[in-house]
Amino acid sequence: MMKGNVVVGQSGGPTSVINSSLAGVFQAAKNLGANKIYGMVHGIKGLLDDNLVDLGEKLKSNMDVELLKRTPSSFLGSCRYKLKEGDKDQYAKILEILNKHDIKYFFYIGGNDSMDTIKQLAAYGSEVGSDIKFMGVPKTIDNDLAVTDHTPGFGSAAKYIGSTLKEVIRDALVYDTKNITVVEIMGRNAGWLTAAAALAKGPDCEGVDMIFVPEVTFDIDKFVEKTAKIQETKNNIVIAVSEGIKTADGKYVCEASQANAFVDSFGHKALNGTARFLCDTLAAKLGCKTRPVEFSTLQRCGAHLASATDISEAFLAGGKAVEAADKGESGKVVIFNRVSSDPYLMIPDIYDVNAIANVEKTVPKEWIVDDNTNISDEFVKYAKPLIQGELPAYMVDGLPTHIKL
Amino acid sequence: MMKGNVVVGQSGGPTSVINSSLAGVFQAAKNLGANKIYGMVHGIKGLLDDNLVDLGEKLKSNMDVELLKRTPSSFLGSCRYKLKEGDKDQYAKILEILNKHDIKYFFYIGGNDSMDTIKQLAAYGSEVGSDIKFMGVPKTIDNDLAVTDHTPGFGSAAKYIGSTLKEVIRDALVYDTKNITVVEIMGRNAGWLTAAAALAKGPDCEGVDMIFVPEVTFDIDKFVEKTAKIQETKNNIVIAVSEGIKTADGKYVCEASQANAFVDSFGHKALNGTARFLCDTLAAKLGCKTRPVEFSTLQRCGAHLASATDISEAFLAGGKAVEAADKGESGKVVIFNRVSSDPYLMIPDIYDVNAIANVEKTVPKEWIVDDNTNISDEFVKYAKPLIQGELPAYMVDGLPTHIKL
Repeated sequence: MMKGNVVVGQSGGPTSVINSSLAGVFQAAKNLGANKIYGMVHGIKGLLDDNLVDLGEKLKSNMDVELLKRTPSSFLGSCRYKLKEGDKDQYAKILEILNKHDIKYFFYIGGNDSMDTIKQLAAYGSEVGSDIKFMGVPKTIDNDLAVTDHTPGFGSAAKYIGSTLKEVIRDALVYDTKNITVVEIMGRNAGWLTAAAALAKGPDCEGVDMIFVPEVTFDIDKFVEKTAKIQETKNNIVIAVSEGIKTADGKYVCEASQANAFVDSFGHKALNGTARFLCDTLAAKLGCKTRPVEFSTLQRCGAHLASATDISEAFLAGGKAVEAADKGESGKVVIFNRVSSDPYLMIPDIYDVNAIANVEKTVPKEWIVDDNTNISDEFVKYAKPLIQGELPAYMVDGLPTHIKL
Repeated sequence: MMKGNVVVGQSGGPTSVINSSLAGVFQAAKNLGANKIYGMVHGIKGLLDDNLVDLGEKLKSNMDVELLKRTPSSFLGSCRYKLKEGDKDQYAKILEILNKHDIKYFFYIGGNDSMDTIKQLAAYGSEVGSDIKFMGVPKTIDNDLAVTDHTPGFGSAAKYIGSTLKEVIRDALVYDTKNITVVEIMGRNAGWLTAAAALAKGPDCEGVDMIFVPEVTFDIDKFVEKTAKIQETKNNIVIAVSEGIKTADGKYVCEASQANAFVDSFGHKALNGTARFLCDTLAAKLGCKTRPVEFSTLQRCGAHLASATDISEAFLAGGKAVEAADKGESGKVVIFNRVSSDPYLMIPDIYDVNAIANVEKTVPKEWIVDDNTNISDEFVKYAKPLIQGELPAYMVDGLPTHIKL
């Protein structure tokens, strides 16, 4: 049984199921007798400002918890805030705030940067002899965390991409004149989500014609040439590209079209406009109609199309972290081990955060086929179990209902 | 009872429910004893090439018809082909093909241009004493047809926009830093779909901050000024704009960013890039992060989020056209008369095509409020009944299933 209070935070980019992990932490901590369960408002940044909410007051019924599972984005708010490695003053300040609230368990739901936060705090905690347990709950649509078979959030985004592409392809094939649709999918360095475009193909769908992931160099001339070749026998072409594709000089394709783009305080340029740039290029070179489609934030917040498998795994991951912390674990992250794909059997476990933080897992090169223009069936076999099942939104007055702070 | 054969075609931009109208025509014609029910492949263009399919062979079971109702885009393919007014050779050719196949009933599902096709053919048919009945079935997400209360297709697109915006807003509000999301919605001259952004607001959703429709002139400086004003008290701003907004000089806003855009054979430039242009402008002037979101074709093909009300009305419209033609009507279009909004009661009727073809209905000026930056509750009351209910996709192996030719 848990002694003392619990705090949980959400960090990094939103997903459709990050709130399911929050629900999982909340429910498990409640079941294990935690006293207060606090939420950090805007992640570690909020904690540093002592901005906490009492989750027991926000989630009063099972219905609230069910709504939370169906609500996209981060219920508690998020942040993009990286602790400075070795900044002991900041570590001490965090521990002081935690101690002030008699918090004995710290859960952080997020991706790579969030796992780094757990790594630093767990190391400092054990250095100063704190009894606070620090646990990471993985979350990222990008599916780029090491060690784990996959990450919560990926399955729902992949299901969104597969489902919506099937609809976009039906739409794109409607005319008997030449046209090209280029669909832009998220993923700066890892092509897992773009690879999910391969899911659309089936007995009732032609699938996409080409898929370009950021793991391999993108050649604009070859791209135009290959598209022209396909156009010789097909009027309507649909192509999936990652927002993160780069040319041989190491530049993002979208940079070509972004002279005036806003650069944030970290020096990051927003990565979009790839599809538009490629459409303009194809229109100019091939003289046909083109249409860019950006899935944009829709692919990470389309909770109405979330995968039930993903939602329950996200929930489970939250619960597993609590259970492990209750048993005395710290500095660990929940991971998924796949026992088999068909039938699908996945067993959650915990793993040393040091092996996971700051390591990026990309799509295996051998799954990128057809002269780097397609994704193999191995990927489809890997991803299919993760998109199974639906947990429909509660529709009220014609629209999905959510819960907010 | 119907004598002879039937032909049905689909034309113009796809919608989520244009296939429901096709299903409605097919089912009603079958019930009324039609002999063969043909489909034009790629609309009137296909008919001119004598490219017909026997729908009885393509839709063999009730399950096929149910799948058709859940399949977005035009099952038969579409075209953007306008008959040349007064081209009697072409009229004669069409009648010759119809007569060759013993076709006595001609149904065309589409928007303004398609109604013009019905108008011309019905007039020519009666001029030459043909006994073929020509009937129009309305379809357009743009909701811009005259006389009718609304058009099939609009409700589902509005439901998609309201639902997805609720998710985008949850996503956009996640950080405590300043950012602006500009969402671009279809509609060249009529702002009905952009107005649907007003549906997102509710007890569980903050709604969008501003809505800009093409019915009123767009002023870029005032837009920046108003956004800056909102930003004084709010970190996260979400704005909905129509792709068709124009500045005082009559130019589309997106044209400013489209020096190299492809111009089609009709001289039409693709209208997109409005959100991106406005985001770049806001980022430069207000120095904050911005994100353009284009709903693009997703809003017209997102059948997995279709409105059940819209699907059944689209089906009903197809059936009504057949029933009227069977009673001897020709040169008419199905329209919807709203008896009441709450409770919602809608009665279909038929109307002279001459009053509908080539007339465009826009959003009433009195519904555009707050210095042209918002949409009134009258619109919400009008649109709410049209987005009610769901007809979930048949999910197979994690994805929606469709039917294709």
